[in-house]
Amino acid sequence: MYRSHTCGELRESDINTKVTLSGWVQKTRDKGFVVWVDLRDRYGITQLVFDEDRTSSKLLEQARSLGREYVVQVTGEVIERTSKNPNIPTGGIEVLVEEVILLNKSKTPPFTIENETDGGEDLRMKYRYLDIRRNPVKNNLIFRSKVSMEVRKYLSDHSFVEVETPYLIKSTPEGARDFVVPSRMNEGQFYALPQSPQTFKQLLMVGGMDKYFQIVKCFRDEDLRADRQPEFTQIDCEMAFVEQEDILDTFEGLTKHLLKEIKGVEISAFPRITYDDAMRIYGNDKPDIRFGMEFGELNAVTQHKDFGVFNSAELVVGIAVPGGASYTRKELDALVNWVKRPQVGAKGMVYVKYNEDGSFKSTVDKFYDQEDLAKWAEITEAKPGDLICVLSGDANKTRTQLSALRMELAERLGLRNPNEFAPLWVIDFPLLELDEETGNYHAMHHPFTSPKPGQLELLETDPGAVRANAYDLVLNGNEIGGGSIRIHDREVQSTMFKHLGFTPEEAQAQFGFLMDAFQYGAPPHGGIAFGLDRLVSILGGQETIRDFIAFPKNNSGRDVMIDAPAAIDQEQLNELKLKLDIEA
Amino acid sequence: MYRSHTCGELRESDINTKVTLSGWVQKTRDKGFVVWVDLRDRYGITQLVFDEDRTSSKLLEQARSLGREYVVQVTGEVIERTSKNPNIPTGGIEVLVEEVILLNKSKTPPFTIENETDGGEDLRMKYRYLDIRRNPVKNNLIFRSKVSMEVRKYLSDHSFVEVETPYLIKSTPEGARDFVVPSRMNEGQFYALPQSPQTFKQLLMVGGMDKYFQIVKCFRDEDLRADRQPEFTQIDCEMAFVEQEDILDTFEGLTKHLLKEIKGVEISAFPRITYDDAMRIYGNDKPDIRFGMEFGELNAVTQHKDFGVFNSAELVVGIAVPGGASYTRKELDALVNWVKRPQVGAKGMVYVKYNEDGSFKSTVDKFYDQEDLAKWAEITEAKPGDLICVLSGDANKTRTQLSALRMELAERLGLRNPNEFAPLWVIDFPLLELDEETGNYHAMHHPFTSPKPGQLELLETDPGAVRANAYDLVLNGNEIGGGSIRIHDREVQSTMFKHLGFTPEEAQAQFGFLMDAFQYGAPPHGGIAFGLDRLVSILGGQETIRDFIAFPKNNSGRDVMIDAPAAIDQEQLNELKLKLDIEA
Repeated sequence: MYRSHTCGELRESDINTKVTLSGWVQKTRDKGFVVWVDLRDRYGITQLVFDEDRTSSKLLEQARSLGREYVVQVTGEVIERTSKNPNIPTGGIEVLVEEVILLNKSKTPPFTIENETDGGEDLRMKYRYLDIRRNPVKNNLIFRSKVSMEVRKYLSDHSFVEVETPYLIKSTPEGARDFVVPSRMNEGQFYALPQSPQTFKQLLMVGGMDKYFQIVKCFRDEDLRADRQPEFTQIDCEMAFVEQEDILDTFEGLTKHLLKEIKGVEISAFPRITYDDAMRIYGNDKPDIRFGMEFGELNAVTQHKDFGVFNSAELVVGIAVPGGASYTRKELDALVNWVKRPQVGAKGMVYVKYNEDGSFKSTVDKFYDQEDLAKWAEITEAKPGDLICVLSGDANKTRTQLSALRMELAERLGLRNPNEFAPLWVIDFPLLELDEETGNYHAMHHPFTSPKPGQLELLETDPGAVRANAYDLVLNGNEIGGGSIRIHDREVQSTMFKHLGFTPEEAQAQFGFLMDAFQYGAPPHGGIAFGLDRLVSILGGQETIRDFIAFPKNNSGRDVMIDAPAAIDQEQLNELKLKLDIEA
Repeated sequence: MYRSHTCGELRESDINTKVTLSGWVQKTRDKGFVVWVDLRDRYGITQLVFDEDRTSSKLLEQARSLGREYVVQVTGEVIERTSKNPNIPTGGIEVLVEEVILLNKSKTPPFTIENETDGGEDLRMKYRYLDIRRNPVKNNLIFRSKVSMEVRKYLSDHSFVEVETPYLIKSTPEGARDFVVPSRMNEGQFYALPQSPQTFKQLLMVGGMDKYFQIVKCFRDEDLRADRQPEFTQIDCEMAFVEQEDILDTFEGLTKHLLKEIKGVEISAFPRITYDDAMRIYGNDKPDIRFGMEFGELNAVTQHKDFGVFNSAELVVGIAVPGGASYTRKELDALVNWVKRPQVGAKGMVYVKYNEDGSFKSTVDKFYDQEDLAKWAEITEAKPGDLICVLSGDANKTRTQLSALRMELAERLGLRNPNEFAPLWVIDFPLLELDEETGNYHAMHHPFTSPKPGQLELLETDPGAVRANAYDLVLNGNEIGGGSIRIHDREVQSTMFKHLGFTPEEAQAQFGFLMDAFQYGAPPHGGIAFGLDRLVSILGGQETIRDFIAFPKNNSGRDVMIDAPAAIDQEQLNELKLKLDIEA
């Protein structure tokens, strides 16, 4: 038996108990006549003590020889500390050691195993197994496990069945790029790894499985943007005999359950906003509503004067920045430069100081008088002391730019409190999205999403106007879940494929099994999928998913710890009937 | 709202309630003046009634038009049945229908959606989504979900953390063949899909994670034997600061929990047997101990006479078949032929009838007298009325043959009761196994398994004799779990790789990250992995794992429903810098 207790367990009530502990040497303090060792495991730290009076000189020497991260097993007696540490749960006691068994030595770790480490990102990734010993990473992984368990408990208690769908499936060129897996037993053929279990969960609905969920890895071979991973985890859910309202209810319930069980936060009914309103009011389909700064559209009150920039603009739109009237000229110039950065892309910015005395001072005083500016303030809900920032131009672009400014300012103003949780349903998404490069429409959610009742005909005449029974769950400005009511009629699905540019042959080759299934009594159904990595990081009050993944990959899709991907043997290639097609 | 109740929910206490149900038409009975429809969903069947007196003729016509597997929503009133059906929970009531909404039609399904179907295996696989509507398949999937949830509850309650390890890892030629995944972003390089998360769970132990588990898909590109799947699910577990005893305790606890929660069976301490004893007594390292028929070694009592077959045999070994003395000559001949089949491979079989009158009659009466045969009976624990079957030859082969005979006879005698559960720990496995073809030793469990203390030196002199801290959990003659205490010392691991035929360079290239990790304070650790597919099927009283997998693959690794694997686009191959190397 390597231990009778963990290093986080002993209290003053254990004094005089003989205990055995195992763990890692966090640090050693040698005062000559006394040596203290902090012994660490997953559960905490316990102070060990060796001293000249009560410890043999041999044992004292052994204590002195222990380096950082050595693994030891110690036996001794729990005693009261003379100088207690109220900051840790075991701070009232220490263990007077009688025996030390060295279980393993350690080289000096390449970075310190402390809450704040001196190791850079790359080094910590290469030695991820050491990084995991640090509390922040360790606690994130335990937190993730707890969230997953609560998800399963809630869904199981609501009659959902967790069904494992296959990982070796079929490649479909639609959507993002698949990872493929050559099949040795089926020469020249490939499996694909699932981008999601979408078609399988729909087949389970056809199969009568009614309430399905799965916490499941999904795969996308995308050029990785920051904070994307080639493999990621979804909470994948589907229900039959439901309307949109049933799904929103069920998963609002799940989210409330998580917020309550995990964060102790109780939230009543989640607000809902349509996609169109979200774009109009926040310039964003995943608005952060922890703070206001709602958009005020100013076209009506700006386009009657000689200011050509506004007169020619499709949209003139502003936000009120709380307390911004006190910004210095230098700060304001910096703000204008910020919106002009290529990442944001505005051509310029008009601003108005709404002074505490009720007067206005703007960069366009030449064109607009105090009465005009008072109207701007009314529309943007600015109060004395605020700054009104106004952008203009193409409607979609301007909204996106102002949304970026809104988020940046909220961040600077400390309005994005990670311990506050503001969920929001965004509903009535467009069914299709125009690809500006190709001029083609593609499915905004996926090709299985149903148009709103009665809107199927609009596909012919005004595809961009068709709205879908599609919804996203947004938490603190992040999309944590999204889903839709699906098509369950073979004819409608055929029509949809046609509008998405599939020939009947392509549709049959790729999704024939689903369309066939729809002929045998497919029930109405719909579902949702949550991004677990994102959900966990936001619940954890952070925004970097990588910190909540045990063994993440870097931006080139590499695992630098195990050094993967890597070359494989020629023999393996031969067996798979493959040749590398690389120029020397 | 598609339904107020499910089709399994209504009882006599609901009489006079107005309800809405949705489901599939199981069958329609038309008596002219009255039409009954059985409506089915995941939860059960409810009888709908339409009749001339209480139903409009239009509605009655509609009822008559409903085909098998049509999807309908009905509204009506719960009424008492005149002729109750005590065999189903809803048998006391029926629903007098007021409205029928046809949600979807169905073509006639290719096989009947009944507990006993007329569909063959191939057809049911192609239309798996229809097969899942059948109770036996549906219930198996729900059962699997319940087992997984109980596993998670038990392990979470015992401080285990579920950590997701990566699916895109590195190929290692050791062991079974990997599925590989070409990396587009890393030209000419490949990921591999994990055969198990073995090295990652060991790194989590180095990372201090202490108690890890994961229910996780694993992948092996093997030529598929019956009832093997290229992707399968493991309950993967690892613990640090443990000895073998700690692991056996913990997972005996898990197995007891499952037997109790899932099957209502309480079992006290699991028996244990060494590998050597299991082979000696049952000729099998996963013995079914629901019945006796233990091997009796007969060398000492057979090799003093002139029977050359036995005299030249390394092993002469027999079992007593309960009641076998009454077998006819024809049955006995068939049994002899059975052991001589190539799949078993015995050269012949000697048998002895132990008659009820206490006399013996054997096929070798020429060589052995009644006194001799009485000794055989004593050793094989045969009783009057039994048959003693004796095989002889090379020890290992003969044990395997007799084990096959023992299992076959037990099956025929009905001794393998699927509702009886007999778990067994098999311990002290050999560390290495001789590959008879190549003459090389390879790891019996895997190369990370630690030899028993003090046996490292034996590796040089008698590798086959080295025993490992390795154990299997056997349930009803099936290995449901296996594991070991691992090596946690870099030097020992190096030595092990050397004995397994790795050059230092190969060991470094493939497992360098693990050996590096061992330098930074690796704790003693060990673990176990359960095959979930197998565990669930045995708990479910069946032996075919395919019946417990939602979308299984066939013996060629194909998913015949979605028709995968399949060819991929040339463009995809180009992006991956791959060429097919197939002769036209």
